[in-house]
Amino acid sequence: MKLIIIGGVAGGASAATRARRLSEDAEILIFERGPDVSFANCGLPYYVGGEIAERGKLLVTTPQMLRARFRLDVRVNTSVETIDRAARRVRVREAASGRAYEASYDRLILAPGAAPLRPPIPGADRPNVFTLRNLADVDRIKARIDQGVRQTVVVGAGFIGLELVENFIRRGIDTSVVELQNQVLPPFDAEMTTPIVEVLHRRGVRVLLGESAEAFEESPEGVLVKLKSGGRLTAQLVILGVGVRPESKLAADAGLEIGVRGGIRVDDRLRTSDPNIYAVGDAVEIRDAVTGDPAQIPLAGPANRQGRIAADNVFGRDVRYRGTQGTAIVGVFDRTAAMTGASEKTLRRGNRPYRKVYVHPAHHAGYYPGAEPMTLKIVFEPESGRLLGAQAVGGAGVDKRIDVLAVAIQAGMTVFDLEEMELAYAPQFGSAKDPVNMAGFVASGLLRGDHPQVDVETVLATAEPDRPCLIDVRTAREFAAGRLPGAVNIPVEELRERLGEIPRGREIAAYCQVGQRGYVATRILRQHGFPASNIGGGYQTYRMFQPHATTLTQARQL
Amino acid sequence: MKLIIIGGVAGGASAATRARRLSEDAEILIFERGPDVSFANCGLPYYVGGEIAERGKLLVTTPQMLRARFRLDVRVNTSVETIDRAARRVRVREAASGRAYEASYDRLILAPGAAPLRPPIPGADRPNVFTLRNLADVDRIKARIDQGVRQTVVVGAGFIGLELVENFIRRGIDTSVVELQNQVLPPFDAEMTTPIVEVLHRRGVRVLLGESAEAFEESPEGVLVKLKSGGRLTAQLVILGVGVRPESKLAADAGLEIGVRGGIRVDDRLRTSDPNIYAVGDAVEIRDAVTGDPAQIPLAGPANRQGRIAADNVFGRDVRYRGTQGTAIVGVFDRTAAMTGASEKTLRRGNRPYRKVYVHPAHHAGYYPGAEPMTLKIVFEPESGRLLGAQAVGGAGVDKRIDVLAVAIQAGMTVFDLEEMELAYAPQFGSAKDPVNMAGFVASGLLRGDHPQVDVETVLATAEPDRPCLIDVRTAREFAAGRLPGAVNIPVEELRERLGEIPRGREIAAYCQVGQRGYVATRILRQHGFPASNIGGGYQTYRMFQPHATTLTQARQL
Repeated sequence: MKLIIIGGVAGGASAATRARRLSEDAEILIFERGPDVSFANCGLPYYVGGEIAERGKLLVTTPQMLRARFRLDVRVNTSVETIDRAARRVRVREAASGRAYEASYDRLILAPGAAPLRPPIPGADRPNVFTLRNLADVDRIKARIDQGVRQTVVVGAGFIGLELVENFIRRGIDTSVVELQNQVLPPFDAEMTTPIVEVLHRRGVRVLLGESAEAFEESPEGVLVKLKSGGRLTAQLVILGVGVRPESKLAADAGLEIGVRGGIRVDDRLRTSDPNIYAVGDAVEIRDAVTGDPAQIPLAGPANRQGRIAADNVFGRDVRYRGTQGTAIVGVFDRTAAMTGASEKTLRRGNRPYRKVYVHPAHHAGYYPGAEPMTLKIVFEPESGRLLGAQAVGGAGVDKRIDVLAVAIQAGMTVFDLEEMELAYAPQFGSAKDPVNMAGFVASGLLRGDHPQVDVETVLATAEPDRPCLIDVRTAREFAAGRLPGAVNIPVEELRERLGEIPRGREIAAYCQVGQRGYVATRILRQHGFPASNIGGGYQTYRMFQPHATTLTQARQL
Repeated sequence: MKLIIIGGVAGGASAATRARRLSEDAEILIFERGPDVSFANCGLPYYVGGEIAERGKLLVTTPQMLRARFRLDVRVNTSVETIDRAARRVRVREAASGRAYEASYDRLILAPGAAPLRPPIPGADRPNVFTLRNLADVDRIKARIDQGVRQTVVVGAGFIGLELVENFIRRGIDTSVVELQNQVLPPFDAEMTTPIVEVLHRRGVRVLLGESAEAFEESPEGVLVKLKSGGRLTAQLVILGVGVRPESKLAADAGLEIGVRGGIRVDDRLRTSDPNIYAVGDAVEIRDAVTGDPAQIPLAGPANRQGRIAADNVFGRDVRYRGTQGTAIVGVFDRTAAMTGASEKTLRRGNRPYRKVYVHPAHHAGYYPGAEPMTLKIVFEPESGRLLGAQAVGGAGVDKRIDVLAVAIQAGMTVFDLEEMELAYAPQFGSAKDPVNMAGFVASGLLRGDHPQVDVETVLATAEPDRPCLIDVRTAREFAAGRLPGAVNIPVEELRERLGEIPRGREIAAYCQVGQRGYVATRILRQHGFPASNIGGGYQTYRMFQPHATTLTQARQL
């Protein structure tokens, strides 16, 4: 077996080491265009900020190690220029010498990854405008910072964009972030990102949403970033972090099938339209494990799994890739946002029926010091209760709950299963009723009809006189500090005595701070004949739907 | 409906509030023997140590709140003395006044909990010898400490025992712990507790294993603890933390069926042998969710779930309790130990077939600062690969992995599913190959035959000449620092060139530090015709099977 692997980072390196474990005899050749294999892609922003101090730490493995331990023929700084599928040969070129040569294969695995998008903005090729993909990029960015950078503009508020923002602030650099969408972290549902915008504001980051860069021009102070709104920003360093595109040109040139979003098309064995060629990682179009739709989800974990599975299939094993569910996490200062499975907006876009609930629990027992609040949102099928997706934002413990829910999605579990989950409880680690259980209680109550709920955005979008009568069942003090427009205050403890104050023949929407007292109130009201619902997640969910105004004016004044 | 609930802490309080949400009309009466309802049982050790500073924090809810919000008739300091099942009446007594009266019920829920065992040791009733169950106990212990305690002895190294040990050390008290078994934390497999013993030693705790207290005698310095070994310990405060027994006397006296371990017997609707009486919480015998055996597992999470389910059934809903899988966690200084499902020793005791693997990964990407090592052990069915149990010990991130695996057990997942889990990865939170994935890889490789493994304790228990030839594939430096007895050193990178040094016709057991290089070596050896296995978890697992000698001699000298 002669196996050639194109690309030596996550998917390619995993495929290569798996291949060697399966066969001591195989000839395994890796062509990597860059100078490094298997580097810590996800660590790059933290090396910029100095949290990861040593560059060597980013080299997860080296060509030398792959040669010594796995007898892999690793050729770095070597690009594959063409694939001759009929002859099963690739033509490669060494960057340093310019020398070109051919190599033949029995099977080929493509793992070329994805490249940062460079939008066609005038000046996007200026020397102070960077993208971040590999160690060479990070070296250039650090070198630029070391020459002195007072201001930076990050275009794109995705995962890498916000990680860079945090690290620029850590280095004391004035930072603005410009995002085309009306939210940061576009894969998330917008309301779940409100706490992230808040922490960015608290740390002094200028967050410009619904905004875009139209030109990068030379200025005495570095680069002048012209914004679509007419605003102007000055920076000595600009990062373009607006997304990636699959590196599928080589595959397309070879006549392999390409998906609608530009990814290499593969079957569930990760085989391309050519049975001798497999493809893995950020370059491929995968199946969304929840919706079943084709998708482009560039993540390191799935890339590694795909590499392993492609190698298994190359060596005759029948192993299938189950699809990608899009489990992802990002730390932004002291906040964490994480998600798994389908977002609400994906489901809405696909016209798929769903219900959702929000809970706002503490990450561990409230009586133990250091409990941090989080918001957890789950979306699920209205009939079966099958979990479709989850998002969480908060501090400590967000990662744990998303991982638990990722497994629940993988297992095809329902919200009724979440109620029964037996998770580890001691006061430093969780609660006897874990946030995941709480989400299960609220969702199951909704589906069983015990706990009718209405979404806050639905209530607010309903005009009088159809809008339900809003009853705030919190204390008078909580009510005074902020409430939904038009609500009246009847604390839950007084509700049974004050039923006479509530209008008959009209829908009632009760709410409290996070949903628990609103639930009790809803139970009381319904048992007394009122058509009542609880506003899911209460006032805290309402607050998340009131995003901070963007700070466009502030930008314009600069 | 007249519902009486006996006991107002976890299970009882959950049953009561659920009952009210189901019915506004029901008369719901709670008799609680103690002065408090729903207090934070699991927080008591941390209040002793001062980590939880305010006593009020331990009161999760109060009788007043239960009355106001849920219209519950809560009677504290009131014991139920007898149940007249034929007449459906209970006879109760108020502690303060001594007044007795009767109350009738349609349905009764028993939630009396469990009481600390007081072993029949002479002097166990001395004033300086305490047990810890409720707020009154903790008040007494704190008062004793405030009078001045230099030395303390904790009898029993279970969860609460070790939590108290940590908190005594936090208060600067010289602490000894005496445990009958040859390990701390008896529900865990012994080797998994080695890092806990190590941290206890590091923090200056005297750990006496395989030891017991035979008498508590008066001494000028407080209490003289006489040990079975002949050793002596002096203390001003002794804690008996040797376990709990279900409070099933009331139920037994009423003629309800009691299980072999003393718990009230219930069906999967939590109904006792009397169809009008339900029982929940630490007092009941439940079904072990993994083995299906009857078991006594006192945990707060299951108690809460049982309370809810019993109330559902009281009000005519058909809801089943799925059993308890025994998910538990304990923090001991900076170490965390957690488990879920069956332990290896439970499986062995039940003669159930199983296989096991160990991995020793970091809790997040090694290239990001602060990665802490953990040991993760999983046990699973040999044929199907169904996960049966998991244990982990380490620092940060142990709780997350056990929760993930608890869900996997609940879902009936296999080790092959663990390979495919898509968990959240950013370098502060995890790895592209999470510890759970790693355990899945190693276990799946074992079952598929790709990765034959042998347990270190099996190798060590095998006498020459049947013992396999041990090959240590680590570096010469690692080998020099410590190795398995009789091993020879051939680093994995040199293995292919040095195959001639390895004896033919003999079993080979390769090993490295944690198992990864040993796996590569095993693949190389087998493909070259050697009957090789990898020692699962490598040298680090071996080290865990070499527990520290107990410090009996040290105790005797005191």
